[in-house]
Amino acid sequence: MRKVFQDELAQVGEELVEISTLVATAIENATTAFFTADVDLAQDVIAADARIDFLQNALDERAIDILALQGPVATDLRMIVSSLRMSASLERMGDLARHIAQLARLRFPAQVIPESLTETFERFAELDIQIARKVAELLDTRDLNLARDIVKLNLEVDELHAGVFKAVAAADWTESAATSVDVALASRYFERFADHGVSVARKVSYLVNGEWQPEVIGGA
Amino acid sequence: MRKVFQDELAQVGEELVEISTLVATAIENATTAFFTADVDLAQDVIAADARIDFLQNALDERAIDILALQGPVATDLRMIVSSLRMSASLERMGDLARHIAQLARLRFPAQVIPESLTETFERFAELDIQIARKVAELLDTRDLNLARDIVKLNLEVDELHAGVFKAVAAADWTESAATSVDVALASRYFERFADHGVSVARKVSYLVNGEWQPEVIGGA
Repeated sequence: MRKVFQDELAQVGEELVEISTLVATAIENATTAFFTADVDLAQDVIAADARIDFLQNALDERAIDILALQGPVATDLRMIVSSLRMSASLERMGDLARHIAQLARLRFPAQVIPESLTETFERFAELDIQIARKVAELLDTRDLNLARDIVKLNLEVDELHAGVFKAVAAADWTESAATSVDVALASRYFERFADHGVSVARKVSYLVNGEWQPEVIGGA
Repeated sequence: MRKVFQDELAQVGEELVEISTLVATAIENATTAFFTADVDLAQDVIAADARIDFLQNALDERAIDILALQGPVATDLRMIVSSLRMSASLERMGDLARHIAQLARLRFPAQVIPESLTETFERFAELDIQIARKVAELLDTRDLNLARDIVKLNLEVDELHAGVFKAVAAADWTESAATSVDVALASRYFERFADHGVSVARKVSYLVNGEWQPEVIGGA
């Protein structure tokens, strides 16, 4: 029985890695579609999000079955409950990658972002991709150096996000209202994506350390 | 032992009602602050959100303790897992009410929303307040008519949200980029708030019926 239980726990862990890998692919493809106005690739991201949602549901059902059948306690219980929360964060990251792809599709064949902010958003994309890849690696390896990296990368994301709102409010901003709205929403999608990555990083740190370590992982 | 267990389950239910009541107050005050440019009231909403976050954490800890100590199965297990998810949705609704209050504070003493959209946003506010109150009542009474009402109200919220984006993109829109961004973000906050309300309504329906009833509750 304990062997079956440990196998099932391991299975939940593997499914989290699988979902996070799909999320990393989603943000890579969404941002490529976003910058190259590739409507087919955008469409792929939108379609692929259903797979992430399906896997999240499957993982949650498995976790609830483990709770019902195995009655885990202590570390195992925390792992299962954390998995339910991490899968919710990963599912939201998939949604946000889809939103970015949807913006690309909506504005096709035009670019979503005006030239003056292209560099900012390319950096946004790089940071979100790095965060997504590190989340997948962190779930796989539980190497907490990755969690620290994610928190640091997110600080730069927050700076970019604030910078975008300053740019739109500045006197020399001449873009249309519609473009301004696209820019603001896109910025928020990139920022929220990174923020959910930090949530996952915090939960892994919690599982490894057994407690929140705000000094290690950068604030509550 | 079973008596203690049933008391603890009931306690979780009461805490959900308490949090949802605070969320309803938060959106009432946030929207009042938003339309009257009342910076003190906005500040109250922002401060009060910490209480919602605190209660959510306390509820989650209680739910995890119940899982660890009581090993609930079947309906009770579903109730506990659903409570963890509903508390997450309620916490996000509190955040979104706070975001609305923060917009009011940021633009003080000006109004966030231009006159041409005031009526739209007043209706948004009415709908979100009704949804929040019905969520609190639904959690208290489990009367599924309320869940159906919430789904219907959310359909109107979605229409308003789409209408705002059309208005901003229309030829006769003359507001500044900064105002356009505020309008778009505010619209998104109102829309997300209602959407989380629907999530809670679905979970209560699920608990009462034992299965998803998409035909009753309006789509997956």
